[in-house]
Amino acid sequence: MIGSGEKIPVAVLGATGAVGQRFVALLANHPWFALTAVTGSERSAGKKYADAVRWTQVSSMPPAAADLTVGNSEPPVAATIAFSALDASVAGETESAFAAAGTLVVSNAKSHRMSPDVPLVVPEVNPEHLERIRHSPHAPGAIITNPNCSTIGLVMALKPLDDAFGLERVSVVTLQAVSGAGLTGASSYEMLDNVVPFIPEEEEKIERETAKILANEALTLSAQCNRVPVLDGHLCCVSVGLRDSPGESDVKNAWERFSGEPQERSLPTAPAQALEYREEADAPQPRRHRDSGGGMTVTIGRLRPCPVLDYKFVTLSHNTIRGAAGGAILIAELAVAKGLAGSESPCV
Amino acid sequence: MIGSGEKIPVAVLGATGAVGQRFVALLANHPWFALTAVTGSERSAGKKYADAVRWTQVSSMPPAAADLTVGNSEPPVAATIAFSALDASVAGETESAFAAAGTLVVSNAKSHRMSPDVPLVVPEVNPEHLERIRHSPHAPGAIITNPNCSTIGLVMALKPLDDAFGLERVSVVTLQAVSGAGLTGASSYEMLDNVVPFIPEEEEKIERETAKILANEALTLSAQCNRVPVLDGHLCCVSVGLRDSPGESDVKNAWERFSGEPQERSLPTAPAQALEYREEADAPQPRRHRDSGGGMTVTIGRLRPCPVLDYKFVTLSHNTIRGAAGGAILIAELAVAKGLAGSESPCV
Amino acid sequence: MIGSGEKIPVAVLGATGAVGQRFVALLANHPWFALTAVTGSERSAGKKYADAVRWTQVSSMPPAAADLTVGNSEPPVAATIAFSALDASVAGETESAFAAAGTLVVSNAKSHRMSPDVPLVVPEVNPEHLERIRHSPHAPGAIITNPNCSTIGLVMALKPLDDAFGLERVSVVTLQAVSGAGLTGASSYEMLDNVVPFIPEEEEKIERETAKILANEALTLSAQCNRVPVLDGHLCCVSVGLRDSPGESDVKNAWERFSGEPQERSLPTAPAQALEYREEADAPQPRRHRDSGGGMTVTIGRLRPCPVLDYKFVTLSHNTIRGAAGGAILIAELAVAKGLAGSESPCV
Amino acid sequence: MIGSGEKIPVAVLGATGAVGQRFVALLANHPWFALTAVTGSERSAGKKYADAVRWTQVSSMPPAAADLTVGNSEPPVAATIAFSALDASVAGETESAFAAAGTLVVSNAKSHRMSPDVPLVVPEVNPEHLERIRHSPHAPGAIITNPNCSTIGLVMALKPLDDAFGLERVSVVTLQAVSGAGLTGASSYEMLDNVVPFIPEEEEKIERETAKILANEALTLSAQCNRVPVLDGHLCCVSVGLRDSPGESDVKNAWERFSGEPQERSLPTAPAQALEYREEADAPQPRRHRDSGGGMTVTIGRLRPCPVLDYKFVTLSHNTIRGAAGGAILIAELAVAKGLAGSESPCV
Repeated sequence: MIGSGEKIPVAVLGATGAVGQRFVALLANHPWFALTAVTGSERSAGKKYADAVRWTQVSSMPPAAADLTVGNSEPPVAATIAFSALDASVAGETESAFAAAGTLVVSNAKSHRMSPDVPLVVPEVNPEHLERIRHSPHAPGAIITNPNCSTIGLVMALKPLDDAFGLERVSVVTLQAVSGAGLTGASSYEMLDNVVPFIPEEEEKIERETAKILANEALTLSAQCNRVPVLDGHLCCVSVGLRDSPGESDVKNAWERFSGEPQERSLPTAPAQALEYREEADAPQPRRHRDSGGGMTVTIGRLRPCPVLDYKFVTLSHNTIRGAAGGAILIAELAVAKGLAGSESPCV
Repeated sequence: MIGSGEKIPVAVLGATGAVGQRFVALLANHPWFALTAVTGSERSAGKKYADAVRWTQVSSMPPAAADLTVGNSEPPVAATIAFSALDASVAGETESAFAAAGTLVVSNAKSHRMSPDVPLVVPEVNPEHLERIRHSPHAPGAIITNPNCSTIGLVMALKPLDDAFGLERVSVVTLQAVSGAGLTGASSYEMLDNVVPFIPEEEEKIERETAKILANEALTLSAQCNRVPVLDGHLCCVSVGLRDSPGESDVKNAWERFSGEPQERSLPTAPAQALEYREEADAPQPRRHRDSGGGMTVTIGRLRPCPVLDYKFVTLSHNTIRGAAGGAILIAELAVAKGLAGSESPCV
Repeated sequence: MIGSGEKIPVAVLGATGAVGQRFVALLANHPWFALTAVTGSERSAGKKYADAVRWTQVSSMPPAAADLTVGNSEPPVAATIAFSALDASVAGETESAFAAAGTLVVSNAKSHRMSPDVPLVVPEVNPEHLERIRHSPHAPGAIITNPNCSTIGLVMALKPLDDAFGLERVSVVTLQAVSGAGLTGASSYEMLDNVVPFIPEEEEKIERETAKILANEALTLSAQCNRVPVLDGHLCCVSVGLRDSPGESDVKNAWERFSGEPQERSLPTAPAQALEYREEADAPQPRRHRDSGGGMTVTIGRLRPCPVLDYKFVTLSHNTIRGAAGGAILIAELAVAKGLAGSESPCV
Repeated sequence: MIGSGEKIPVAVLGATGAVGQRFVALLANHPWFALTAVTGSERSAGKKYADAVRWTQVSSMPPAAADLTVGNSEPPVAATIAFSALDASVAGETESAFAAAGTLVVSNAKSHRMSPDVPLVVPEVNPEHLERIRHSPHAPGAIITNPNCSTIGLVMALKPLDDAFGLERVSVVTLQAVSGAGLTGASSYEMLDNVVPFIPEEEEKIERETAKILANEALTLSAQCNRVPVLDGHLCCVSVGLRDSPGESDVKNAWERFSGEPQERSLPTAPAQALEYREEADAPQPRRHRDSGGGMTVTIGRLRPCPVLDYKFVTLSHNTIRGAAGGAILIAELAVAKGLAGSESPCV
């Protein structure tokens, strides 16, 4: 398929929200995928996308998307792959219906993440989990899920430590951007001059999703989540306890050597560097480093010993690119590259 | 002295900066203290305070302060007690000089905090340390120090846990307000839409000052500090490991019962409640709760089990009131009430 | 009535929104009024107020309000006066219905503002318009309206200029706080690091409401409105063209001498000074000056000649106190003081 | 020279500040200019640029710049053109000295802007003023100045109106970003949840610089300036009085047709479109539109009749790109293209 000149038709389900708009923006000029359908709520269905959406991306709306008519979120859809940016309240049933109709659904919603049959994937971390869709309970289609936006950056920084030194305990405090709450999720009256030290269900998601992705039964993880007045970019202050006793340079080397299938296969959305360690005393910072690698690189800094566990450090990931739309597109690219989707895949 | 109708003359050293202004604002109409002198840098010395200061408090400048002539920061000063808001670069020597000249210096600077002879005090936590000034190395005066702004809120929440259940391990991540960096310390170009995950020396201060105040040799503490775009109010996400295994209600009870000499003696600046536990799912929040108890109460919320240590929770304290000027004034009030300062004290 | 010891029962219609909460907060401990009823949407009706509201005020919820059961927004209501914080989509009919049922409705909604029979009142500016309710088209009750939040501050600064020098032309650019958009009106994703130079219908409201209040047919007014990332406080940059040619001191004197019935009658919510002129080069500023006079004083600064019209200056008013709930309560107080409401009024 | 393959050596004077850093960032990979020298204060002189600067740009520091040794700001400098980002307190004398030593200085400082012999240029607006350097009072070098950051966007929007319809009166209120105040100019404690309705000297600069650039003696202009909590992008709310009475479409056409020598000569930094009119009801917005045309396009929106003058509208320009470093680089490109600088120019 790759290089065939024929692009794979893709849809975005729930295309008018914050994450949906990111999908639409990132799919513009994609070398493999062509956006052929968008869906929305009943209020939007039947309108042109340009009229249905309150566009808030800094980049202009892609002209090809502007003219699409918004469908309602029911199958079938004229696409081989459907990226789901649906709200969790409807994602579960809707995604199952699309998959049952033969679509490969790559979902950003939480609904199916913890189903044992549904892969929960970060392409650099657990690409082998993708194979599970060969035995999809939703055949002839399938569902693949993207983790929660704060889990993704964290798990990418943890994976090389787990592989090299044995990860035993993790204590993480997040400082999360408002875009993670969607276009209407955090009013400016609530967030200006303020921090909200609570994000519903977020701590549970980080704890259970990290466990599923790393498949490390010895791991204990504790998360505390905060919403801060930052537009994009989730920061994590992490402490880790390790089985082994590596030196600081060993830890940095583990991060710097880290690479995965997306890099080996040179997938279109894969950053050259999955992880970047910065030596400045005050890095990473959301505004300055969130766009590293087109928003797909996770930035790490401030590695130092932790008096309570072993090491502490700070990670940063772009929550609506790597942590949502970009991460999901990378999953789809990997599925295509592995022959799990596209013309030769079980999903068509 | 108390009730005599004669107020104790007090000075503010370094009165034009952010903390200095807070001292001046909080001392207006103080029932025991009368502000009789302010000092500043060479650039300010000789001017009227109203002309020397770029006043940034929301409350109006106290008229009595406006007319004071700014002195240079050299002894003697026409005051029994001097509150020091001096920059750390000059505080060490200057405070020693004032103390040697017979003044009781209550300092907000870091310079003398770790000297074994100098008490480092939070009045509700370790009032007994105040007694050390009877053997002051700076006689005929003395120096008492106030901890770092983020340490104060933290140590107040930890003290009752240490007393009741034995505190062994603490992991804390702070989200600190920009006022902690002084009037010029954090440019808006740096802080808008951003978090800076580094505050020079702050983590070390929290770790060593907490240890000195609690005098608990079994305690291990790890701190990670962040500057967030909030005006006032330092938030701490805390995990604790305890010797005993209290239930959640035991922990809340320990906080709610917590009271100290400032409450028993009804000191003017003491809040009725030193600690306040809030049951809302999303409390405490800087803007909504920082002014609790006139900015002198520490607010706690979100107590829940920690998978890595024992419990986790969130604390909030007003960093320029409880964490700086208000905390120092409360120290001075306690010193006066204990007969360590004022007319019968060794300092006059 | 005043001084009788018996408080007048009042209701807040639409009590769960941003302005509704301000009414509830400002009515706590009111010397004349007792909050006896609150209403809300169907979703809230039947719940305790404490359970129905997402309280966002910095002050605690008044205990008396917390226990009220939220009524649906239909008459009758057990109150003599009803403060309306209803959304404009329902305010028109609902307020008419309450008035027809005998209630004096003091409304913050736009629906009835431009009806010739309905007074549109700023108590210091056009108290005489209140008399119109004696011939209320909604008898036995009546409706009085409060202007738009940005109009109030502006018209208070303009009134003394109109009286003394003849106001002919006004060009105003507003910088308005996010609280003016309600709890959900401006997402933080839209407002952080941004200005939105458009507020639906706002410019038209300022132009037509100012004309109705000042009843000056010679006046031409042009408004441009912006939403800025500020919590509370609407700033107006104003240029005026006058019939006469006063000196700068004449203009300042006109402002400083300005006083009205609320001050003469010492109404509970009236600030001692309706207008305050500040001489600092950089005043007024929203965060520093919005709470002047308990949020009821309008602050003015930067008077200087305008090369295009005659003078330019800056005004600031607290948009949810003077510009909404506080302004409406002051109207009700004036109505009571004038015998238009309360026990001897036509409304009971 | 252009196309010769040999780049023109350029310097940045005052390279460590906010505007200096923008110059360094924008000059990376410039097709005509090679950065060969940077200067700074005494504190920085002698250090590597990477060590001397507190880099705050989002893009990485250009490697070629990182290794330059910072010179003190005294001539000579190994460069044909020197971009001055010097502070106004030293710019006057320093720039004269560099020009006297044979350098063409393109300055962003105010010091020489109003000298009759020194051109004050916006390349699309008054390119003919550049010719004045043929009779430079600073020969063998010369000084060309860039207007104040808020003047540039304004004057670009006004020029086509002046040409087509005769501009007579302008009333402008600005909402300016914090980057305009430099790295240390606006503390976050001052700007969070606030607006400062005063920028020293700014209103005077706009009034006199616009008059010099447009050379329209019939023009009366009044400016009011505000600092708002936005990172980059100055917004102007403008009302204009015109000699003629064009329709709205005439005005939009005048803007859309507007083009100048930079576009005709396809200068490297020239945007394809100097002015862009947006039809959305709420455009332009700083965060969404400031980067239009690489930060070199001025965005206009909200054209509508003004009851006081004739028309009102909103303009937006990126203050540190078009309004500072980018604007100055475009001047230098135009000077080179016109043969006024580079190998055949009087400056070498």
